[in-house]
Amino acid sequence: MKKIINPLPDTWLNLLERPANERADMDSLVSEVFEEVQKKGDTAIQKYTQLFDGTSLKTFKVSEEEMNAATISKELTAAIQLAKKNIETFHNSQKTATERIETTPGVICWQEKRAIQKVGLYIPGGTAPLFSTILMLAVPAQLAGCTEIVLCTPPNNEGEIDPAILYTAKLCGVTKIFKVGGVQAIAAMALGTASVPAVYKIFGPGNQFVTAAKQYATTFGVAIDMPAGPSELLVFADETAVPAFVASDLLSQAEHGADSQVVLVSTSEKMLDEVAVEIEKQLTLLPRKEIATLAMQNSKLILVDSNKTALALINTYAPEHLIIVAEDEAYFVENVQNAGSVFIGNYTPESAGDYASGTNHTLPTNGFAKQYSGVNLDSFMKSITFQKISEAGIQAIGPAIETMAAAEGLQAHKNAVSLRLKSIGNE
Amino acid sequence: MKKIINPLPDTWLNLLERPANERADMDSLVSEVFEEVQKKGDTAIQKYTQLFDGTSLKTFKVSEEEMNAATISKELTAAIQLAKKNIETFHNSQKTATERIETTPGVICWQEKRAIQKVGLYIPGGTAPLFSTILMLAVPAQLAGCTEIVLCTPPNNEGEIDPAILYTAKLCGVTKIFKVGGVQAIAAMALGTASVPAVYKIFGPGNQFVTAAKQYATTFGVAIDMPAGPSELLVFADETAVPAFVASDLLSQAEHGADSQVVLVSTSEKMLDEVAVEIEKQLTLLPRKEIATLAMQNSKLILVDSNKTALALINTYAPEHLIIVAEDEAYFVENVQNAGSVFIGNYTPESAGDYASGTNHTLPTNGFAKQYSGVNLDSFMKSITFQKISEAGIQAIGPAIETMAAAEGLQAHKNAVSLRLKSIGNE
Repeated sequence: MKKIINPLPDTWLNLLERPANERADMDSLVSEVFEEVQKKGDTAIQKYTQLFDGTSLKTFKVSEEEMNAATISKELTAAIQLAKKNIETFHNSQKTATERIETTPGVICWQEKRAIQKVGLYIPGGTAPLFSTILMLAVPAQLAGCTEIVLCTPPNNEGEIDPAILYTAKLCGVTKIFKVGGVQAIAAMALGTASVPAVYKIFGPGNQFVTAAKQYATTFGVAIDMPAGPSELLVFADETAVPAFVASDLLSQAEHGADSQVVLVSTSEKMLDEVAVEIEKQLTLLPRKEIATLAMQNSKLILVDSNKTALALINTYAPEHLIIVAEDEAYFVENVQNAGSVFIGNYTPESAGDYASGTNHTLPTNGFAKQYSGVNLDSFMKSITFQKISEAGIQAIGPAIETMAAAEGLQAHKNAVSLRLKSIGNE
Repeated sequence: MKKIINPLPDTWLNLLERPANERADMDSLVSEVFEEVQKKGDTAIQKYTQLFDGTSLKTFKVSEEEMNAATISKELTAAIQLAKKNIETFHNSQKTATERIETTPGVICWQEKRAIQKVGLYIPGGTAPLFSTILMLAVPAQLAGCTEIVLCTPPNNEGEIDPAILYTAKLCGVTKIFKVGGVQAIAAMALGTASVPAVYKIFGPGNQFVTAAKQYATTFGVAIDMPAGPSELLVFADETAVPAFVASDLLSQAEHGADSQVVLVSTSEKMLDEVAVEIEKQLTLLPRKEIATLAMQNSKLILVDSNKTALALINTYAPEHLIIVAEDEAYFVENVQNAGSVFIGNYTPESAGDYASGTNHTLPTNGFAKQYSGVNLDSFMKSITFQKISEAGIQAIGPAIETMAAAEGLQAHKNAVSLRLKSIGNE
């Protein structure tokens, strides 16, 4: 771990630079898969599933029998249900009431949110089943009222899906589950095949190829939740923090992958040093210590001279996850501009938000917290505006519309108002 | 105009097919311009401004003197101010209060919206100054609290910008205006040059090239409002509609461009025929009648057997603008799933929303109303989630987190909780 003392603000962006992906190679593979899925549908899915997942499947849809056969331990069932309840409670609180506004007497405007009818959720495969991401995507989709919730996830080389994935999907109202992964899953949900329905918006994490595929899908008129990059955590800890807790949080980020970004900022050099010692101690006990060690090699311990400097650095970096353990935590909470999700105090580890506090763990990485929200209830809805104007209303605003339309050279726009004004006795 | 009687639902998508753009040609030009702007900055902007706008500029930033010299008629000033007031009132009503939720005793979660700090607005050039779009973008940007609001718009071949553009930009708090248009404007705002600052999100309409440039900009980590296509209007009118009004609305859409989409749906064949007659009558008087005539040739008059069928057709088409003139208007208002902005009743022309009712006119075209909102206050903000957990809170949810983290194979995630539980006496 590299310790950096009071770096100058104009060095921050370089200091905290994220790793860049090589896009060119991915782009050609992605467009090739899309083209083949567009032309050959399920046959193409079959081919790529054989190629990338090493299993030969005739049907991709998980059957009723497979769903019913999925069993997990009582302890895990209870944990998932507790997490679901909290996620539901928090996302339900994001519902907004419709407010009708009379902008001018007789001119009533309002905005209503309606569900995106068909959504697709992508859940990556790998060494462990990421059922927690199903909670984070399917719970708000169901609360929003999406009528078709499609889930794609890669099968193992036996052609099977982990029972925790199936259990959670069923619990959260996923309507159809398909054993399809990677670029071919994104292509299937974007274009539709005989088995997999096309959806209007695709959500979920994935590796660089899945991310490139999601971005490519947008050129086919499909929306995506956000571009995704490697996960990242910035901790600000002053002398009120517990070094062992801080170390455990940094390590929980580091175990995600060798490209995870881990940054500790402090106004106390003693804290930096104590956390470094704790990291060494805890690291040796981790089953994923090779991965975590690689990630920690790129990590930074940064000493700054004040809370103000720390805040400026945080807003420049725009971390996906931000932990604040500070005597003046209110200063950071009030003034943070750019972050995905913020964890406050010694008893709020990032893992709480990853699983069970209720907030969403699908968050903007790669500095995108400057312009993107994490997934929330609104991600599964769109706003429609409505307006209703009375005769008095059009008399009040009509002349302004006529003037503006004429100034923009749009005579027919003006006419639409003039005809109505004339009919009610204004000339 | 083509009259279609009771088309079968499985023919709707073909019947209402939108024109497809040829992307390949645009993509190579767009990437070429981006590459040159990235390498040469303002020199590249100069070159393309000469090439596409026919004017040679040394500086692009509109000066204080140019801003102060911009004068428009008193009538237009008053109209713009009235529109601004209504747009402000409506967008201000979209502010949401922060709600703190205790998902489990001791686990407090909330979501706060913060402004996207730097935004870029693109205003197209052409035969008339589109100052109304500045109102639609800069008013919510200012309400949201964006600190840098950059505007790019092409100069005329004298190197000037219309005074109505300058007046409106100043009125709405735009911080910097640049005489840069087309693909080079999008590249400049995405990448930054010595003159033009890089922004986090780009808004605004434009032709196919500008749209392709905005989509390309997203691969450089910039967000965009939405992909844009030709403007479109669907009117549903039953026998309670005034044919002359309906005709004027259809024509106001048709005058936008030859590729505008205009659709009239009715349960009354008499209404379809009367509107057709009115269109012929009104069309001859329009200054932009060539454009409108071309658009009307692609327009459709569709007879359906019931309100229910009309609603299903509307939701399948997902129109940018939807006018509803119907005895049972509530049925449509309650059940429309896919539309950008809805105009209700005989006295609510689309031009009202284009200029002055208060709703936004930057709306999803091309069927994107299925998954995108029009521009609104939230478009200029992002949500950050916060959570603060007490000792009692982590005791309540900690064991569930431990179980889930272990099941996902993430031991360090589990540790971060276990350490804390241990420190407060749980093992």
